[in-house]
Amino acid sequence: MSVSTAAADRSLCAPLPVLGRDVTVPLVTGGEVAYAALDYAASAPALQRVWDDVAAYAPYYGSVHRGAGYLSQLSTDLFENARGTVAGFLGCRPDDQVVFTRSTTDSLNLLARALPAGCQVFVFETEHHASLLPWQDARVTYLDAPRTPQQAVRTLERALAERDPHGPALVCVTGASNVTGELWPVRELAAAAHAHGARIVLDAAQLAPHHPVDLGDLDVDWVAFSGHKLYAPFGSGVLAGRADWLRAAEPYLAGGGASRKVTRRQDGGVDVEWHDSAARHEAGSPNVIGAYSIAAACKALTEAGWDTLVAREEHLIRTVREGLAEVPEVRILSLFGDDAPRVGVLSFVVEGWNSSHFAAALSAEYGIGVRDGLFCAHPLVRTLLGTDPQTQGECGAPETAPGEKSLNAVRVSFGAGTPDEHVERFVTAVRELVRDGARWQYRTEDGRCVPAV
Amino acid sequence: MSVSTAAADRSLCAPLPVLGRDVTVPLVTGGEVAYAALDYAASAPALQRVWDDVAAYAPYYGSVHRGAGYLSQLSTDLFENARGTVAGFLGCRPDDQVVFTRSTTDSLNLLARALPAGCQVFVFETEHHASLLPWQDARVTYLDAPRTPQQAVRTLERALAERDPHGPALVCVTGASNVTGELWPVRELAAAAHAHGARIVLDAAQLAPHHPVDLGDLDVDWVAFSGHKLYAPFGSGVLAGRADWLRAAEPYLAGGGASRKVTRRQDGGVDVEWHDSAARHEAGSPNVIGAYSIAAACKALTEAGWDTLVAREEHLIRTVREGLAEVPEVRILSLFGDDAPRVGVLSFVVEGWNSSHFAAALSAEYGIGVRDGLFCAHPLVRTLLGTDPQTQGECGAPETAPGEKSLNAVRVSFGAGTPDEHVERFVTAVRELVRDGARWQYRTEDGRCVPAV
Repeated sequence: MSVSTAAADRSLCAPLPVLGRDVTVPLVTGGEVAYAALDYAASAPALQRVWDDVAAYAPYYGSVHRGAGYLSQLSTDLFENARGTVAGFLGCRPDDQVVFTRSTTDSLNLLARALPAGCQVFVFETEHHASLLPWQDARVTYLDAPRTPQQAVRTLERALAERDPHGPALVCVTGASNVTGELWPVRELAAAAHAHGARIVLDAAQLAPHHPVDLGDLDVDWVAFSGHKLYAPFGSGVLAGRADWLRAAEPYLAGGGASRKVTRRQDGGVDVEWHDSAARHEAGSPNVIGAYSIAAACKALTEAGWDTLVAREEHLIRTVREGLAEVPEVRILSLFGDDAPRVGVLSFVVEGWNSSHFAAALSAEYGIGVRDGLFCAHPLVRTLLGTDPQTQGECGAPETAPGEKSLNAVRVSFGAGTPDEHVERFVTAVRELVRDGARWQYRTEDGRCVPAV
Repeated sequence: MSVSTAAADRSLCAPLPVLGRDVTVPLVTGGEVAYAALDYAASAPALQRVWDDVAAYAPYYGSVHRGAGYLSQLSTDLFENARGTVAGFLGCRPDDQVVFTRSTTDSLNLLARALPAGCQVFVFETEHHASLLPWQDARVTYLDAPRTPQQAVRTLERALAERDPHGPALVCVTGASNVTGELWPVRELAAAAHAHGARIVLDAAQLAPHHPVDLGDLDVDWVAFSGHKLYAPFGSGVLAGRADWLRAAEPYLAGGGASRKVTRRQDGGVDVEWHDSAARHEAGSPNVIGAYSIAAACKALTEAGWDTLVAREEHLIRTVREGLAEVPEVRILSLFGDDAPRVGVLSFVVEGWNSSHFAAALSAEYGIGVRDGLFCAHPLVRTLLGTDPQTQGECGAPETAPGEKSLNAVRVSFGAGTPDEHVERFVTAVRELVRDGARWQYRTEDGRCVPAV
């Protein structure tokens, strides 16, 4: 691969404009360079369109749901319309509910609290912590890491076949790995779940920003995603899907908005009637700007067109993978192998480099922002690295000094706002760092690997 | 009172600039008028300064806590500095933790989940639902509405004296009522709580936007408030205070960020080590814009000066109260009487008017946004109205047709961004509506009272 691969494909659409596209950052070696944000899998920049919509609305912001004033009614309509936009974006079925949460983590914690009594949960050990950990109050079966999509389906089928067939069960699965970017066989896993009387929730945190997600088409029962990975970083997320478990559950938060009627009893106690709409789990004043920004992102992505966005991202993925393939010291982490379909998320280690050191050099010497660590998916990354299960791996904190054997990985991730130049610079930087070494000294400070002054 | 009262006091500071101050809305009677946002107690407009700070930061937004890139490190520093700014704003003690939540409701639900085993909770029935309802899994004692601040202290002391003195106990009290605006004797209630070995959490949702709140000075153990009432409507809130119960509690949300280390066990299970800093209860990517916006508001209010802000608000309160006092048909709802110190939140009923009708007319004929209903404080408002405890009172939804006896109230509320003209217009509007009646017909549609076309 060479830079000309990217340059050759000028028929592709331009990246969608995002905030920060003109931001420059200082290099430790002198001068400034445009910042290459290649940590989309953690948080993506806001789409310019999302920001513009929020900025246009902000002066009209009013107390949602509760006020008699013109701006309150406008804000209430806008909030409820946002729900409808998200429902359309996700291909929700008529009876589905769209609950605004604060993030994917929050969405899955909400669903975990809504599980029927005795519910069994099935989850692969390869999930990131947001989808691995919320189920600990239930009976959880952790499934071993599969090495092919087919093995994933067989593993799930076997586990479900062994379960008590009469009780409720839930399968939780990620749509695209936040470590490898690889797509999971969601439709097949959903079919397996339903064939065994289980339900399934799709963690679309890494899928929704890159591919269309359609609940009806995939036949999943719920989907969860975050605004801040979907170009709408205003503190909101979504849980959408079947209403029955949500309606039957205790309210996620107790407070106003979720309560329809509160009365003091004769005996001094308090009785509460709760809503059974989405409001049941949205106590407190809703984050109307957060919800509106997600709706704006859904519209912007839909209008840009998924075919166009996916084609452009495939091109970026090719640029990165072909570029890294030319550097034998780089080992890309993969569960499903080279041919697996994937989104623009890729993790790797570099022989002889501590990953924190490598990431710090990409930032300080090239103005490229990636992430190093275990990516809040500790068991998966240790499996892929082949390191001891007891290896320490604090999120984002390198535990080894520069130069020592790396116990964690580097992740590069991108999306609809990424220009060719960012991934081209990344490929060049990897090649130069491996060939020439870092041009600067680094040291560990407060758990971060930073340039030594 | 007349408008000249307000005009006479030109030594007062100008209102702080807020978004939406130039927004005009249509009147049903023709023409447009500047919108008078008088529903601050539900959600306040963003301070212009807060918006400007958010807009300046937005292009530099990056993945907080987790990225090696320049903008990630900048965003992480900004997020953690926001915590420090909030700690300073609240007068936190050295060992206190500042946890970013999504709202007051969320903050109090978090504390409710962090109660030690066997904890007894004491709460007045006069609390709004956010502070009344989160404790239902504990042993809750609901205290009758006091009619003086002194009676509140005596009621609490009596209840605490009767409790099992060896177990943990928590008192939850609002700083300023979201219905009457009246200040509660927080310092005295804290002293009573501590004298009886109990702890106390202050719900400062309505207090923090209007008065300084100092944990050390008030000697309260925790304080909760919302960004969207503090001129920072970006989906964040705060719980700040004693670290011990928070550290000992199960994490509020299970997921990345809260987990330090996750390992698969030999028996197939999963072990988790959780953080014991504030991150323990902040799983998922933090809402960095939300946290930053709260810090910006804290700075703006501190720099404007509380003496100045309080003096200006007292002037607005006088204008409203003196204006309403001249309309005998208006009855102001009060627990503690005319002389009670209060913030800019005031509820009332108008003889012969359904409150929803009155609020709709204020909006449609005067461009004034107030709120009608039971204000998510059902038991308190029913006590103040003297209505049957079983009276229906859905948030914001009038249950009676225009013209029938009102079962709910109108609330007017304002703050640092409110110009004199808004409250003067409000007083004039009340006087005219009571004297002349509405100039338009209204009907109920989808639970809202709206102009009939």
